[in-house]
Amino acid sequence: MTVNGFMALALEQARKSAELGEVPVGAVVVDGAGGDVLAVGGNRTVEFDDPTAHAEMVAIRRAASLQGSSRLQGCDLYVTLEPCAMCAGAISLARIRRLYFGAYDAKGGGVEHGARVFAQATCNHKPEVYGGVSEKASAELLQAFFKERR
Amino acid sequence: MTVNGFMALALEQARKSAELGEVPVGAVVVDGAGGDVLAVGGNRTVEFDDPTAHAEMVAIRRAASLQGSSRLQGCDLYVTLEPCAMCAGAISLARIRRLYFGAYDAKGGGVEHGARVFAQATCNHKPEVYGGVSEKASAELLQAFFKERR
Repeated sequence: MTVNGFMALALEQARKSAELGEVPVGAVVVDGAGGDVLAVGGNRTVEFDDPTAHAEMVAIRRAASLQGSSRLQGCDLYVTLEPCAMCAGAISLARIRRLYFGAYDAKGGGVEHGARVFAQATCNHKPEVYGGVSEKASAELLQAFFKERR
Repeated sequence: MTVNGFMALALEQARKSAELGEVPVGAVVVDGAGGDVLAVGGNRTVEFDDPTAHAEMVAIRRAASLQGSSRLQGCDLYVTLEPCAMCAGAISLARIRRLYFGAYDAKGGGVEHGARVFAQATCNHKPEVYGGVSEKASAELLQAFFKERR
C-alpha cells in the first residue's frame, strides 16, 4: 500500500470518530518492513472518558499491546492531524520510525508548532517527519466538524 | 493530608514499580477541593507493553475513568519525577489544576527542561507547578534502580 493508501485508512478512522461525536482525527500504525497494518485508532476522548485517548495514542497502545512490546521499532505512524505535544512525546517513546501527518495544527500541534518536541536537543528518538500528506481531506473533516458545532 | 503526605503515596507507587522491575516513578491524582485521592498509578510500560504507561498517564486515565469525564478540573497531580513532554501534554489536556513533582529530570523532563510544554504560548491550559517536593527521596529511588541495572 502507498503512503496515500495508509492515510486513506487513517481518514476512515477520522470519519468514524466524527460519527461518534468525537473530534475527527484518525491514525494507523504500520510495520515499516512488511507494510502490514498493525493497528488503527480514532480519537475517543469522550467515549473512553480519557483525555489521553487521541487517535495516535489509541493506535500506538493497540499496536504495542499486539506486538507484546512497549517499543514499535521500525513502525510508521499515519495520522490525519499534526500530533500535539503529548502524542509527539508518545511517538518518540514508542520509537516510531516515520511519522506521516495530514493537516498542520498551528494551535494544538507539538511537532512543527508549540513545544516542537522532536526539535529539542534532549529528545531521545526523533522520527522522520512528513507533514501535509492528504492535507486537504484531513483539514476539511475537521473544519466541517467544528463548523457544525460552533 | 499535606503535600508531603500525598507525595508519600506517590513514592509508595514508585517503590511498587521498582519491585516489578519498572522504572520507579509514582503518581497520585487528588480532588483539590475535598482532598480525596481519586487514583494512584505507577510506571507500567513493561508490564502493560505500553510506551504511554508512565505513572502520570496511568493515574490520570484511572481518575478520568472514575470521574466519568475526560477533564479533571480542580484536580491536582503529585508525581515523583518531572513529567516528560507526553505526560506534560496529558496534564494540560486533562486540565490538572496543580502539578507537584519530586526530582527534576534534565534529560527526559518536559516541564522545566526540553519541550517546556507549559511555557509555550500555544499551551491551552497551564497548571500551577511546584517542583522539588520530596526531591531527595524521589531521586534516590531512581538512582538505586539504575545503579543496580547498569
